[in-house]
Amino acid sequence: MMVDTLTVDEALANVQQRMRDAAASGVPLVQQAARHIIDAGGKRLRPRLLFHAYGAAGGLRLEEALPLGVAIELIHTATLVHDDINDHSALRRGRVTVNAKWGRTIALLTGDFLFTRAYSLMAPQGDRFNQLLASACSALVEGEVLQAVVAKSGQYDRDNYVRIISLKTAALFSCAARLGGLKAGAPEEHVEALGTYGHNLGLAFQIVDDVLDITGDPGVTGKPAHEDAGQHKLGLVALARENGGTARGTNLRDTDILTEPLLAAGLVDEAMGKARELTERGCAALQTLPDSPARRALEGMARKVVSRDR
Amino acid sequence: MMVDTLTVDEALANVQQRMRDAAASGVPLVQQAARHIIDAGGKRLRPRLLFHAYGAAGGLRLEEALPLGVAIELIHTATLVHDDINDHSALRRGRVTVNAKWGRTIALLTGDFLFTRAYSLMAPQGDRFNQLLASACSALVEGEVLQAVVAKSGQYDRDNYVRIISLKTAALFSCAARLGGLKAGAPEEHVEALGTYGHNLGLAFQIVDDVLDITGDPGVTGKPAHEDAGQHKLGLVALARENGGTARGTNLRDTDILTEPLLAAGLVDEAMGKARELTERGCAALQTLPDSPARRALEGMARKVVSRDR
Repeated sequence: MMVDTLTVDEALANVQQRMRDAAASGVPLVQQAARHIIDAGGKRLRPRLLFHAYGAAGGLRLEEALPLGVAIELIHTATLVHDDINDHSALRRGRVTVNAKWGRTIALLTGDFLFTRAYSLMAPQGDRFNQLLASACSALVEGEVLQAVVAKSGQYDRDNYVRIISLKTAALFSCAARLGGLKAGAPEEHVEALGTYGHNLGLAFQIVDDVLDITGDPGVTGKPAHEDAGQHKLGLVALARENGGTARGTNLRDTDILTEPLLAAGLVDEAMGKARELTERGCAALQTLPDSPARRALEGMARKVVSRDR
Repeated sequence: MMVDTLTVDEALANVQQRMRDAAASGVPLVQQAARHIIDAGGKRLRPRLLFHAYGAAGGLRLEEALPLGVAIELIHTATLVHDDINDHSALRRGRVTVNAKWGRTIALLTGDFLFTRAYSLMAPQGDRFNQLLASACSALVEGEVLQAVVAKSGQYDRDNYVRIISLKTAALFSCAARLGGLKAGAPEEHVEALGTYGHNLGLAFQIVDDVLDITGDPGVTGKPAHEDAGQHKLGLVALARENGGTARGTNLRDTDILTEPLLAAGLVDEAMGKARELTERGCAALQTLPDSPARRALEGMARKVVSRDR
């Protein structure tokens, strides 16, 4: 059956425009600040995942999944604005951050605003969709709180690290994949499979993100470029340690762990191995879905996540 | 028709418990911080308004309006937590604020968390309810941004002031009243009347709040106790000025306006007169609804708003 519908790339271009539209406001400053971060772009990984999941689940009119993609990316964007306040970040995607440009109060409110706009967009979607997204939103916040708690105590272990990245990253990935499947009207079993794929993709994505935070650091042998990098190193050490790696016994309270010994100890390789394992697990779950170009696109996303360099 | 249902006071006690339940989390710190502010109590004016509106619109089973009352108060509470960050407030309702106790990052996330929990509670309520609440949430944020903009520029005029308090306060009051009416299945005309009542009640409430911020100030002749008080004075001056009051020509850029001259100029009296006028307008709108104990309770709320001293 051929239907004249959007391609995923066309849908993603639409997401960009619709995010800008959603940020319209009678109060110019909040619109300007919201569009500042929206226009900074990004990988738009979550809507991409949602759209491919929709296709893989047999959806034929990508238009109907568009508002979901917009809402999920608005929520992700809201969390970035709030994260940048908490991390005192001055740059995001090559642009000055909202907090650096307009101050903390406006940044806090801009994050809130993006969130309320996502909520507006979701209103017509019905109970199940809203419940799924609301749970993912709570998880995001819980993950950030847990990260702050663990960072403060220095009590990193593998369980903490996995729990943090499950909440703060994998929950929204899993939600995106499920929402796509649900919108396509897929049977529960397929929605579940997509959720499992999204969850594992999200975990792998965050591990690779943390690895890149270290290996992408220009001063490789120096101290972390920002506080976060130290946290990520500790997380990765904790992860590798339980993998039976060479890091056993590393003092996880030491925030001065250097990148060089980390590389030497093979921890980064171990973490990347773990990420690949997770994407494979995710792709295995997809095998319950019929083969299709969209399913292959999901498999391609998984490969890309573990081979990316930014 | 007699139905065995909750009284408004019973429903409000329920709201308190359900807010605590909604704040449950597997991450202890965010639950603790959220319950810290919930347990500080408050007037619970918005759910009270919602419940009386439900009754005035003919609703007979207050239980069904409960989740709406909980959600709206969670949202209000979320904005308080974020406001306290922006205002660097150390005390709220006689308790140390979340930001003073746990720091800014946790406070920001606690506000976000309360918001996501409200969103979860609303998920089963359907399109119209969610759309109304989402719009009110955006308005809240826009009002805070506009207030920050005007505070910075010092360009207070009556229009700005009314626009700020319409967005940041009256929108949620109006929404509460409408949600109550809608839940009772009231005809559109009654929902509208309740919205008009709520809007005017919200405006009056905020004006009185701003007045109390001045007259309740222990150092009556001194400078504002906090930055906010200065803002409120400017707003009130702007309001009175256009009322044909004696403040015509006051320099609205002067953040050092003292309370004593403000009182002497009769500005506070004028503001209170304006608040009374607004509540009367609100109560007039209620006359399209049949007389009932609940309608009289709404009229009582209006009287109380303009006679309160805290």
